Amino acid sequence: MTSIIYQADYIVTMDANNTVIKDGAIFVCNGNIMQLGKASEILPQHIGTPIKKMPQRLLMPGLINTHCHSGMLRGTAEGLAVWDWLQQYIDPMHRVLTPKDASLSSWLCYAEALQSGTTCIVDMWRYMEGSAIAAKELGIRACLVPYVAEHPEHNYFETLDSNEDLINKWHQQEEGRIQVWVGLEHLFYAVPKALTRIGDLCRDYQVGFHTHSNESRFDVEQTLNRYNMRPIHALKKFGLLNAPKTLLAHCVWADNTEISLMAENNIGVAHNPISNMKLASGAAPIIEMLKVGVSVGLGTDGEKENNNLDMFEEMKVSSLLAKFSNLDASLLDAWDICRMATIGGAKALGLEHRIGSLEVGKSADMIAIRTNTPRMTPLIDEGPLMNIHHNLVHAVQGQDVEMTMVSGNILVEDGKLLNHDIQQLIDNVNNAAPDLFTRRDKWLKQSGGGKNALFK
Amino acid sequence: MTSIIYQADYIVTMDANNTVIKDGAIFVCNGNIMQLGKASEILPQHIGTPIKKMPQRLLMPGLINTHCHSGMLRGTAEGLAVWDWLQQYIDPMHRVLTPKDASLSSWLCYAEALQSGTTCIVDMWRYMEGSAIAAKELGIRACLVPYVAEHPEHNYFETLDSNEDLINKWHQQEEGRIQVWVGLEHLFYAVPKALTRIGDLCRDYQVGFHTHSNESRFDVEQTLNRYNMRPIHALKKFGLLNAPKTLLAHCVWADNTEISLMAENNIGVAHNPISNMKLASGAAPIIEMLKVGVSVGLGTDGEKENNNLDMFEEMKVSSLLAKFSNLDASLLDAWDICRMATIGGAKALGLEHRIGSLEVGKSADMIAIRTNTPRMTPLIDEGPLMNIHHNLVHAVQGQDVEMTMVSGNILVEDGKLLNHDIQQLIDNVNNAAPDLFTRRDKWLKQSGGGKNALFK
Repeated sequence: MTSIIYQADYIVTMDANNTVIKDGAIFVCNGNIMQLGKASEILPQHIGTPIKKMPQRLLMPGLINTHCHSGMLRGTAEGLAVWDWLQQYIDPMHRVLTPKDASLSSWLCYAEALQSGTTCIVDMWRYMEGSAIAAKELGIRACLVPYVAEHPEHNYFETLDSNEDLINKWHQQEEGRIQVWVGLEHLFYAVPKALTRIGDLCRDYQVGFHTHSNESRFDVEQTLNRYNMRPIHALKKFGLLNAPKTLLAHCVWADNTEISLMAENNIGVAHNPISNMKLASGAAPIIEMLKVGVSVGLGTDGEKENNNLDMFEEMKVSSLLAKFSNLDASLLDAWDICRMATIGGAKALGLEHRIGSLEVGKSADMIAIRTNTPRMTPLIDEGPLMNIHHNLVHAVQGQDVEMTMVSGNILVEDGKLLNHDIQQLIDNVNNAAPDLFTRRDKWLKQSGGGKNALFK
Repeated sequence: MTSIIYQADYIVTMDANNTVIKDGAIFVCNGNIMQLGKASEILPQHIGTPIKKMPQRLLMPGLINTHCHSGMLRGTAEGLAVWDWLQQYIDPMHRVLTPKDASLSSWLCYAEALQSGTTCIVDMWRYMEGSAIAAKELGIRACLVPYVAEHPEHNYFETLDSNEDLINKWHQQEEGRIQVWVGLEHLFYAVPKALTRIGDLCRDYQVGFHTHSNESRFDVEQTLNRYNMRPIHALKKFGLLNAPKTLLAHCVWADNTEISLMAENNIGVAHNPISNMKLASGAAPIIEMLKVGVSVGLGTDGEKENNNLDMFEEMKVSSLLAKFSNLDASLLDAWDICRMATIGGAKALGLEHRIGSLEVGKSADMIAIRTNTPRMTPLIDEGPLMNIHHNLVHAVQGQDVEMTMVSGNILVEDGKLLNHDIQQLIDNVNNAAPDLFTRRDKWLKQSGGGKNALFK
């Protein structure tokens, strides 16, 4: 049994009362939080237990990135709205992607996530055996969701068969740190029979389901044209709202009937404000969702949509977008945003019993933030001007994360990745990317461009 | 004569063609750029000159923050729209602010700016003798603009007399690195006679004028009520568009007649997208402004409006806001954003002959960005997928700045402030802030709340 006490100036617990413990300590045993409170109360009860003192640090739950895609297209797919962008840059890339490219992408993606304070990531990606190994080795908590398509026009993605294989091999591995869900690129990327099988797979294996929905006006209009109903209603029609857990990314254009359906069916939402702004998709009605109790988490989307994976930046932009798009500066309180990035995300994934807050019995998935920075100054820790949560949301950045821990294992220390050489991961992607682009160019030339038959 | 050559993997010049030099070198002599080009061409011409090699670094012009306020209210003035926020939190703070508070605020503000790659800052603030000393000692290029009010209801700000004193003492000091302009909180904060004197002062001393304008719908409506004209027309009426340089912050609600007036009068605009979103002010029509040739720079606004001073974050949000508010992902190209943060800002300040790009004859105001980060990966340096500018705008953050130089002097190295102990600056603000809040509380209680008579 390995026991250790972490002592820091502040513990932002993200419990039901958003309790902040000043001069706090957390007693961790075998990767789980056994006790936490004032250092002056905890320490005398554990004489002889090693203590890691973290002065000028704040401990909080690790951030949960509820929607991401590994990838190596950063900064190379710019200036287009989401469906044009998919057809010109992204789908052609999927046609030529190799398992090795996919693996190198996940390694760098998870490393970037860990360094900026993400301890749990939902990754929708390809050839995810490599992603599973990257998550295993780097130590991040991962929910792996293959990019499935089951449609004659999209025969170059993952399949439900390969998804099922991945579940059999990797779901609940590493003491549950790695989960595998059933994925789907989008409702349009599967024939009805496949949609039915998705629901069956989720129920048979008791795993979650994740897809994109209501991202842009375009996909709403197309769904109305095809099914004479809006996207979330269509998901219901195909039995995809009653998986053990359904997590929908974006939901920008969800209307009130769809929001009600989400609330009724305990659907999780991954809100991606940066991606939604950058791809000109729109602003998701998260105020309305939160009001009716939908579990909303935050997601960065991928390196090509954002273009970084900094969940602190995502928190800030979630605040800016809510305030701006409603022209109401009082909307989306900073605590609510901290909750979306932590316990809200955990609920959206159905993992709130294990992660999302620092509470007794949960996994020691936590991060240390430097408080001795201009971004945390002044630091007011009590009274009506208490600003720790405001600083976390609007001032702090991922690079202020000094330490990242998952299941009690320190994976980033002094801002540096411990389990792998970050420079090698960077070099690997820089070496692989040009060849991927060359193959994509070749495919585009041979095929006469990237126009997708589905949407001609 | 001090000469040195800086050699880096990339030089992003921000010249008229956005030239990027691979394997570049810059020959700097007495703080000025004498020559730049390929290292293979520059180095052999200067045998014996010291060379500072910067592998895995990109050199670019220092960022120009065209609108900021020093302050120590970070995270303590949240959730209100701009005019309510001014009355509840900000104006009462101004009533009790001391010269010492003001000085400590500027020290930390300029330190934060330098560490995140800002080499030139426009600071509208109080008791700016202290700000001038901070700028002098820390080495940043500063345009100091006292927060002037000349109105019986606002007798607690700077005055035109104190502004004139500051011009006499500090304008063009430190070899021109410190400028002093004439400031005004807002058109409403001065009686007509004072407005006339502002124009006179600017012309007499040949200095610029800076104020807030068109920030929110509220101030436009109030201006229409009072003067029966829109804000920029009112500024013209009072002779404030023909100072040697006029820089207007925000201009969110400027209409086409006002944009035309700005273009005709060579007015500079400080665009503050984060502040405008956070305070629910709106989205400035910068696409329209850029189209007619208005010089638009970027500004962070202050620690209480943003809540950090990271110009890279401001670049990213300027992109997101333009794309989202017009629902057009093609708007505001990354190069245009890089220009706003550099040469565009320089033009908005009338300083384009000295700063804003890396070109022969300009001051060596430049920064080095780490390229060996996930945020810069992959790095494609040529061809149609060249992504350096996209990475700079959408992925890089202020903490990726390794070196900051002004007039050839290195002020930040390895991300660390050289001319002062950053921890002391942080401690100073943490020590001073509680007392400022206590005095503000006392004033609010005595006065019966912060409601401003002008807007009751």
